[in-house]
Amino acid sequence: MRFAIALLVFVPVGGVFGLWPLPRSLQTGTTALKLAPDFDIHMNVLHAPSDLSDAVARTKSHLKNDKLGRVVVGRGSSDSSVIQHAKSLASLHVSLTKGATVRSITEEARLAIETRSEGYSLTIPSDGSAATLTANSTLGLYRGLTTFEQLWYQWSGNLYTIEAPVTITDAPAYPWRGFMLDTSRNFFSVSDIKRTLDAMTMVKMSQFHWHVSDSQSFPLEVPGYTELASKGAYDPSMIYSPSDVKDIVDYAGARGIDVVVEIDTPGHTSIISAAHPEHIACPIASPWSDFAAEPPSGQLRLASASTTNFTAGLLSAVAKMFPSTIMSTGGDEVNANCYEQDAETQADLKATGRTLEQALDVFTQHTHGAIIAEGKTPAVWEEMVLDHNITLSNETIVLVWISSANAAAVAEKNFRLVHGPSDYFYLDCGAGEWIGKDVGNSWCDPFKTWQKAYTFDPQANISESQAHLVLGGEQLLWAEQSGPENLDPIVWPRAATSAEVFWSGPGGDSNEALPRLHDIAFRMRQRGIQAIQLQPMWCALRPGLCNIDS
Amino acid sequence: MRFAIALLVFVPVGGVFGLWPLPRSLQTGTTALKLAPDFDIHMNVLHAPSDLSDAVARTKSHLKNDKLGRVVVGRGSSDSSVIQHAKSLASLHVSLTKGATVRSITEEARLAIETRSEGYSLTIPSDGSAATLTANSTLGLYRGLTTFEQLWYQWSGNLYTIEAPVTITDAPAYPWRGFMLDTSRNFFSVSDIKRTLDAMTMVKMSQFHWHVSDSQSFPLEVPGYTELASKGAYDPSMIYSPSDVKDIVDYAGARGIDVVVEIDTPGHTSIISAAHPEHIACPIASPWSDFAAEPPSGQLRLASASTTNFTAGLLSAVAKMFPSTIMSTGGDEVNANCYEQDAETQADLKATGRTLEQALDVFTQHTHGAIIAEGKTPAVWEEMVLDHNITLSNETIVLVWISSANAAAVAEKNFRLVHGPSDYFYLDCGAGEWIGKDVGNSWCDPFKTWQKAYTFDPQANISESQAHLVLGGEQLLWAEQSGPENLDPIVWPRAATSAEVFWSGPGGDSNEALPRLHDIAFRMRQRGIQAIQLQPMWCALRPGLCNIDS
Repeated sequence: MRFAIALLVFVPVGGVFGLWPLPRSLQTGTTALKLAPDFDIHMNVLHAPSDLSDAVARTKSHLKNDKLGRVVVGRGSSDSSVIQHAKSLASLHVSLTKGATVRSITEEARLAIETRSEGYSLTIPSDGSAATLTANSTLGLYRGLTTFEQLWYQWSGNLYTIEAPVTITDAPAYPWRGFMLDTSRNFFSVSDIKRTLDAMTMVKMSQFHWHVSDSQSFPLEVPGYTELASKGAYDPSMIYSPSDVKDIVDYAGARGIDVVVEIDTPGHTSIISAAHPEHIACPIASPWSDFAAEPPSGQLRLASASTTNFTAGLLSAVAKMFPSTIMSTGGDEVNANCYEQDAETQADLKATGRTLEQALDVFTQHTHGAIIAEGKTPAVWEEMVLDHNITLSNETIVLVWISSANAAAVAEKNFRLVHGPSDYFYLDCGAGEWIGKDVGNSWCDPFKTWQKAYTFDPQANISESQAHLVLGGEQLLWAEQSGPENLDPIVWPRAATSAEVFWSGPGGDSNEALPRLHDIAFRMRQRGIQAIQLQPMWCALRPGLCNIDS
Repeated sequence: MRFAIALLVFVPVGGVFGLWPLPRSLQTGTTALKLAPDFDIHMNVLHAPSDLSDAVARTKSHLKNDKLGRVVVGRGSSDSSVIQHAKSLASLHVSLTKGATVRSITEEARLAIETRSEGYSLTIPSDGSAATLTANSTLGLYRGLTTFEQLWYQWSGNLYTIEAPVTITDAPAYPWRGFMLDTSRNFFSVSDIKRTLDAMTMVKMSQFHWHVSDSQSFPLEVPGYTELASKGAYDPSMIYSPSDVKDIVDYAGARGIDVVVEIDTPGHTSIISAAHPEHIACPIASPWSDFAAEPPSGQLRLASASTTNFTAGLLSAVAKMFPSTIMSTGGDEVNANCYEQDAETQADLKATGRTLEQALDVFTQHTHGAIIAEGKTPAVWEEMVLDHNITLSNETIVLVWISSANAAAVAEKNFRLVHGPSDYFYLDCGAGEWIGKDVGNSWCDPFKTWQKAYTFDPQANISESQAHLVLGGEQLLWAEQSGPENLDPIVWPRAATSAEVFWSGPGGDSNEALPRLHDIAFRMRQRGIQAIQLQPMWCALRPGLCNIDS
């Protein structure tokens, strides 16, 4: 029998405590170093954009306010003496690479996704001489500041690391590292979304995929189409005004996050019938299961020229609200029976001599045309390329959701793709069926653990010649059983998992990752994000002791 | 094809909106009635105890502050005209049945569990004449006030019902309607617990089963044994002081809730080794799975006279902190291998000539003796009667947890029992495995939905002659993957399910219950409890439209 008294055992953990995602190249030492009382960040950037200055100010504020003790027994008490004798770091020097164009973080974050520059280099000597952070872009500098914040713990009024010197050269493996939020099934306030963006940027996520509307509610006030929200929001207090959208988009941009809005079409649009019954086939039909994947049923009358024009106009108006180069038009779960049973759609098809598929093609080209005209690249759910025979620009980005097994088929059709497979990344799965009178499990049970998400391989079954088509991936929260009440705990720290898979690359060891994931969850809680406990705190404080067979 | 435009459809829902649990006898009408602006509650109770006066004051405060709109489309807007013409209710008269003994709610809630009186009668005429609430006890009056609060909705400054007259005669089917919280795996603050008690009392729960300590941490400061918390709590800020306990117990008592503390023994005690290594066998042994159900391993040396005396003294000291007549000594998951490998236990067994089972018997009689001497009835987990051959007082209450199938065997041994089966009532199940390096599901997956809990039958497989042994049941939160961050959403409104099963009796129709469960969840949110969304709000506002085949 091997006994180990935990309080006496030191469990080394690789040598990296708080970094998430793990940098691509990292060397750390074993020397203690503390921040000088007058530690400061010096920005050597000519005409520094205000969002960079703001980011530096936030970093200083986080250093002061995180007050995170090391996630070990004693929370740093055993570091007392090394802290006392540690050298002091007086400054971090921040600069752009010579000749780099100076743009704001916001502008950099909204560049075409494959052209962004997020890399940086960070060096922290152990002798107290100045630390340096350099990058080719302000966005890279911002990512580096985020890393810098994760290196310091507090004990007895000191901020310190026991891992100096630190040398990091970093850049993401994939540009799309995202989180999707559904604000239609249940509503989330602007402050809920901002808090989510705060957590996203802590783990260097780049994309907020905002599934803003669906069949249940239409909470977005769109100029020229305000009746959709006034009649389709759950409540007047549950509407995102244009200024709310600007507030969110600006907040995200300053944090290196691009906001990709989605107006799901032609399905998932039942609530549009509240304002425009003329545009919706099979609204709230019974039994709903014959007409939709979930209640209520209702789809845009895609064969109608009037409805197609209405949709194109709506998408165009929404496009103007969002500065991203990407916008999603959805396209999932189009229900054929709804259209077969809809007399007006049948009449429209007959009049034009089109099949339903042909009508979908015309509808999609028209609506995609509207957002392309606004300078956007369309994104669609996988069915639009895997289940339908329609013409899509080869620029279109395809969101894989049904199964991770479908990504390869999308790549074979030569479309760029984003991984959001329900079998790995659906954060809502595992809460059982929400349909009344059903005690069973839901279609996507069980719960997708962080460990499962961490095993995801973005290139599985994808040929080398198609590897470049993988833009990255995202974890998703569909909100049938979620609302502001459980937003943080159902999302965090789980959604950080894919942020690391798509930044650091796949193949990580979850035993190595777990202490770091605890650490970032503790730090999130210090910043007011209600990240869930992954284990008993006993385990969190004793890395390795709660693994299988340990 | 049958279309139904939801906004135009009125969906009748039985006739009861906000009551949870459903009263045993209930008649409602269809007349609107509003509370007069000067509505007041008149208490005709001589020498009314202060906790009853406080409860009346809280009811008035809830009536004023809940501000809950009806959970239908428009949130009450369609009631405008009936409200305008409704009669006004000026007063509720509260009185005890003639000759009833006047005790405080707190005293009544702490009486021996089978002797409590929780019944009440509530009558609300539709003509504006005074409403009346009568009961045999202040506890019954308190339950009636709780019901009264659930009858009123707000629209445009008015509090009203559309279901007058209301006649209710009510009393619970079972006295133990509980919730168990584990505060050892992760810590919950006093305010978290009080908020939980607020939610519990909204659904007339009677028992807060406080699993205060376990192997991971010992957060309870016990007079005479303060080293257990000072060395075994996660942090000095994570300790319940005696005054915290009094605060919680008093808060609960005033809300009709009895607090049953559990000090789990002899297993689930590893952390005691931090202060008393001499009392713990196999502390933090490796691999833990050979020695315990989860890390860390460690059990009280039950064969040691010194450890037995220590434990009895500890239990006695804890018993003095809690006024309940019931106290749990745990007894689950005793690991035999731990004792087989422990040299001291083997020496103790050899010296006394006892088998391990005999030593467990001696240990249990001694420790149970200590709490019986303090006037407590012991409660134990089911293994103590189903897996071990030890002598227990026939007064002992047995907590069934492993499976609902085991209740009948406990009843056959003629012990009173409380249902807490993992297959129905474990609120933590369904989040996947938390042990590191394991992507699988946990032993008690999947998630236990409210619908599943609602099908629970307390008398299944129990003979009529043993029916009286069933005290009731409870839903439980083991906190390996929970903390303050997800306490409310993982517990509420799900834990309300068993509160109804054990108050109203089993056999309810979940389609009938769902709108009421939405309603109580909405009301909980109005009171600051972060109860989860059970469905899209679209469904919550349209009872019946999100059922299967609707």
